[in-house]
Amino acid sequence: MYRPDIKVVDCTIRDGGLANNSYFTMDAVRAVYKAVCESGVDYVELGYRNSKKFFSPEKYGLWRFCDEDVLRQATEGIDPRGTKLSVMQDSHKADPDDVLPKEKSVVDMIRVATYVKDVDKAIRLANNATEKGYETTINIMAISHEGSPFLEEALDQIEKETNALAVYIVDSFGALYSETVHYLVEKYQMYVKTKEIGVHFHNNQQLAFANTVEGVIKGANFLDGTLYGLGRAAGNCPIELLLSFLKNPKFNVLPLLDVIGKTIIPLREQIEWGYTIPYMLSGVLDRHPQLSMQWVESGGPRKHDYVEFYRQLTEDPEQ
Amino acid sequence: MYRPDIKVVDCTIRDGGLANNSYFTMDAVRAVYKAVCESGVDYVELGYRNSKKFFSPEKYGLWRFCDEDVLRQATEGIDPRGTKLSVMQDSHKADPDDVLPKEKSVVDMIRVATYVKDVDKAIRLANNATEKGYETTINIMAISHEGSPFLEEALDQIEKETNALAVYIVDSFGALYSETVHYLVEKYQMYVKTKEIGVHFHNNQQLAFANTVEGVIKGANFLDGTLYGLGRAAGNCPIELLLSFLKNPKFNVLPLLDVIGKTIIPLREQIEWGYTIPYMLSGVLDRHPQLSMQWVESGGPRKHDYVEFYRQLTEDPEQ
Repeated sequence: MYRPDIKVVDCTIRDGGLANNSYFTMDAVRAVYKAVCESGVDYVELGYRNSKKFFSPEKYGLWRFCDEDVLRQATEGIDPRGTKLSVMQDSHKADPDDVLPKEKSVVDMIRVATYVKDVDKAIRLANNATEKGYETTINIMAISHEGSPFLEEALDQIEKETNALAVYIVDSFGALYSETVHYLVEKYQMYVKTKEIGVHFHNNQQLAFANTVEGVIKGANFLDGTLYGLGRAAGNCPIELLLSFLKNPKFNVLPLLDVIGKTIIPLREQIEWGYTIPYMLSGVLDRHPQLSMQWVESGGPRKHDYVEFYRQLTEDPEQ
Repeated sequence: MYRPDIKVVDCTIRDGGLANNSYFTMDAVRAVYKAVCESGVDYVELGYRNSKKFFSPEKYGLWRFCDEDVLRQATEGIDPRGTKLSVMQDSHKADPDDVLPKEKSVVDMIRVATYVKDVDKAIRLANNATEKGYETTINIMAISHEGSPFLEEALDQIEKETNALAVYIVDSFGALYSETVHYLVEKYQMYVKTKEIGVHFHNNQQLAFANTVEGVIKGANFLDGTLYGLGRAAGNCPIELLLSFLKNPKFNVLPLLDVIGKTIIPLREQIEWGYTIPYMLSGVLDRHPQLSMQWVESGGPRKHDYVEFYRQLTEDPEQ
């Protein structure tokens, strides 16, 4: 019934950090880390290893940088039970020198997020991590805006020039449907022969979990999810749904349900995520959610005047 | 790009009535009716035409019975622009005599909801409606609990003994995945040759919209949705997502977005619907959402103790 090759990556703290400038308390991160380890999920991503040259430590929390001592504090005394620790580097906002040799680090995997135009930077970061002893993936963001022939060239380069474990389809704008997921997995499979394909979906159209399942059906083996879908804007594939679908007996969803009730639900007082009409519209129109986030956060009496918001979104002369 | 055969049914007031005993104000129903007519959606279902012998008018609101004078009040002065009016009868809780001849009614379609075991009652009600001049469908509820050979016999009977326009797959428990949707549409197609197939999905696993799209891909042509997913428990396929996906130029999503902001969002103060862990669990476990609804409505400090709720759900000796 289940496919043992499948690896699940919990990126609650990393992706959720886009919604709160990576300000999570140490207690919250330890609770998430402990629950994910107990659940049998393969990887847990605790934040970005981005550069303080690009992000001010005054403006961003600890989990935007994931210094080694911070990660040690987050994981100390908790049995990982086989769950590996991941951090993400943005191809255009990270420094290879911020990555220590693996033997001096608690990190197991470094995932590099990139746009197609920055793929050479991504390859440099991924190879830097590989050389220092880490597992790596390359995650191609904003995939619904990436077209031929540049996407194919990037896939070909990643295939030939890196030892990444997986190359990801990242639907940053929540714009994909099952048919576009199928199309993209098949396209990736034409170029990526020695690596796995990964999928990371957003929930603007309530399709993050459904599209992940479609990725599985087509052969994707690296699957991202977050607790209760926590993430920027409409959020992500809820990892509790994913584990229940996958049916691998090594997974146990109960620690995840427990930490959702105790740690994630209270976060709703600080972070607003999930399906709303402004996020639905940015997904349907295949746009960055930034304007929708501003609209949702603005509050006030016009917050639910969706016709006015639609007008603003679609009259922008630059679009 | 679009399939002109597809008919969309808005059942916000009918399905939402399961969450509030069909107590909607006349103003709310008129606002929904007007918006759906303006949007170009094919049918709007304003409630049940169930019997006062089974439902007390003291305990249930107007939209559980949809008396003709009530429907006239709801629709008076509003241009239907081609949108047809539907009501639903439960096969085991409705009276054929409550249906007037079509020429004395504002109703265009009567949909009969049934379990497989009650299919003979459903056929009687559907044929009663057909004889009196209405369009009809038969909607098989709790489809994830219906198995061979009874489901096949029911489909065969409906095909041979009725003039229903469509036979529905109704995923009452939100338990289906894309592969089970494909399986069921194909099974229906083996028996249902002269009628359309309809789909009605619940959102326990955030799959209501995704499964509707999968139904479309396999050939289902009657599609149910509700405004912002309003409905009992986890709710339904959000009709605004469905219209945006379908791309038929006769549809206009803006009146729907407008009424969502003005009429549906305020209802959240009285009705709690949408994805929560208790509904996710009833979907994953393929159970009626009743225990989950009780848990969600109970409130209090243990509301988010999902491990305890899981224990209660799974230790019940009758399950």
